[in-house]
Amino acid sequence: MTRGREPAVSAPLAPPISAALWLNTPEPVTLAQLRGRVVVLHAFQMLCPGCVTHGLPQAVEIQRAFDPDAVAVLGLHSVFEHHKAMTPAALRAFVHEYRLTFPIAIDQPSADGPVPYTMQAYRMQGTPTLVLIDRCGRLRAQHFGVTADVAVGAEIGRLLAEPGITAP
Amino acid sequence: MTRGREPAVSAPLAPPISAALWLNTPEPVTLAQLRGRVVVLHAFQMLCPGCVTHGLPQAVEIQRAFDPDAVAVLGLHSVFEHHKAMTPAALRAFVHEYRLTFPIAIDQPSADGPVPYTMQAYRMQGTPTLVLIDRCGRLRAQHFGVTADVAVGAEIGRLLAEPGITAP
Amino acid sequence: MTRGREPAVSAPLAPPISAALWLNTPEPVTLAQLRGRVVVLHAFQMLCPGCVTHGLPQAVEIQRAFDPDAVAVLGLHSVFEHHKAMTPAALRAFVHEYRLTFPIAIDQPSADGPVPYTMQAYRMQGTPTLVLIDRCGRLRAQHFGVTADVAVGAEIGRLLAEPGITAP
Amino acid sequence: MTRGREPAVSAPLAPPISAALWLNTPEPVTLAQLRGRVVVLHAFQMLCPGCVTHGLPQAVEIQRAFDPDAVAVLGLHSVFEHHKAMTPAALRAFVHEYRLTFPIAIDQPSADGPVPYTMQAYRMQGTPTLVLIDRCGRLRAQHFGVTADVAVGAEIGRLLAEPGITAP
Repeated sequence: MTRGREPAVSAPLAPPISAALWLNTPEPVTLAQLRGRVVVLHAFQMLCPGCVTHGLPQAVEIQRAFDPDAVAVLGLHSVFEHHKAMTPAALRAFVHEYRLTFPIAIDQPSADGPVPYTMQAYRMQGTPTLVLIDRCGRLRAQHFGVTADVAVGAEIGRLLAEPGITAP
Repeated sequence: MTRGREPAVSAPLAPPISAALWLNTPEPVTLAQLRGRVVVLHAFQMLCPGCVTHGLPQAVEIQRAFDPDAVAVLGLHSVFEHHKAMTPAALRAFVHEYRLTFPIAIDQPSADGPVPYTMQAYRMQGTPTLVLIDRCGRLRAQHFGVTADVAVGAEIGRLLAEPGITAP
Repeated sequence: MTRGREPAVSAPLAPPISAALWLNTPEPVTLAQLRGRVVVLHAFQMLCPGCVTHGLPQAVEIQRAFDPDAVAVLGLHSVFEHHKAMTPAALRAFVHEYRLTFPIAIDQPSADGPVPYTMQAYRMQGTPTLVLIDRCGRLRAQHFGVTADVAVGAEIGRLLAEPGITAP
Repeated sequence: MTRGREPAVSAPLAPPISAALWLNTPEPVTLAQLRGRVVVLHAFQMLCPGCVTHGLPQAVEIQRAFDPDAVAVLGLHSVFEHHKAMTPAALRAFVHEYRLTFPIAIDQPSADGPVPYTMQAYRMQGTPTLVLIDRCGRLRAQHFGVTADVAVGAEIGRLLAEPGITAP
């Protein structure tokens, strides 16, 4: 349930994305580069049915609905189970077959457990998780599971209406 | 395609709703009463397949996603064809069967043609049409046909982020 | 759950269709005329959401899947509630807007209650109801509510595999 | 388009299934064991979007609609592209996540090309492919791509109506 207008916010910066590898981009992407844009980060696993039927189609819909100079859509492949099945080679085939075109980070595996680094840094509960980062790089919303398109759209719309970084 | 942040806007007031009758409300609703809220006005015909499969479910989704004190959802039954079929009695049965709970105006029939008054005043091209009115009562967007939930959500989110009417 | 092969059956003839009016056909249709074909009779109300979202699309799908000389699809508008809303004029508009092309009978209103004649004769519980009649005119299946397409297809396939009327 | 009743048919036996491995069954399954039942063989690839959104849900729907003693549903994982991505370990994870419970054969890889043995033997054009085998083990229908549930149901219903193997 989304309420009315809110005052200027105070929120921490979103943790950096630790990637073992990036797909769909010639160079690694950093959140710092994306200052000035709203960032939609969709964390998924290629063998997670909720991601395939809901989360990824929503990310594609967001990519289609907004000017890429205003809203950057990123994928984050955060494998915390079935590690042998969801390899980089498997993800490449998946991304090719499902025709995903936004940059996708392979979340950096952790040395001390099944949950990869970025997933840990964001304290995600599972996949799909949708993260919204404002024009100033601050973490503003994080949703685990299914969120209605209208509600996600409204959150993005609000972040777009906020002032971005002012030049020094 | 929705771009970045926009400056304060200049837009005309939305035309008033001319209703022959209101359903789902004890008293007629006026746009003037709703100043301070974003208004989502969904114009439909009960026998329009695009309204039944897309437009009305989207209106229900919007009603579910937002605080009613922030976003008011209204229906407008704008009959411009099959007038004998889409009578007030028929609409009442439809609204009951489809469990619609937001206030619905029956657009005032015109004496000089098939297109009712409010539909004329808004120069709508047909149904479904989605109209967005800002907190100040200004007409800010009007979409004929199917619009993606994410995009509509973003437009509502932006209007919610604008300042409303300041008390005198 | 559909079992294996069954022996030759004994079943009563399907009651005749009592129609006040037929749409989408120059002449009234009788079940007797359709001997030799499997008949799929879909009873609906134009303001019944389950009919609009499930039953009628299934009837259209059946019409599309089979040779009309083998399977005849008929609609039956059995109004047992909201009689003032679901008039013949309203049904005509509905059939036009939803582009239904199979013959549709308006079930004959009853003098002594809200339930029309054919609906009474078949002892239907409500709408949507799907009735299957074999090549010999016998009532072979009747389903109230939602039935899976695969299961309905299998029932039609079995009836198609039975011998029809033998010439005397 | 499915026509009326057909005479007793003459059709070749379905080729045997060459499997490198079976999932969801303690013992390998052979078509010979299934004589007396109609067999629905669904050939898929786990990273084929048409299989995930259409073919596999249809196979699950068929499994749900029929008595398993009358209709046996089998999966066939016929990998002809992205071999490194669609390994047995990956398929196991996929089957677990998508909760598939029918027996699934991993099609035997071929020494002389990317197309596996069973896929070659059936001359399949790609995935998804739906194969229908009658009670006598004969190949009766093979559909590449999307086939409507009603039409597939009708084909199964017809095969169920045919006599099975007579005991010697």
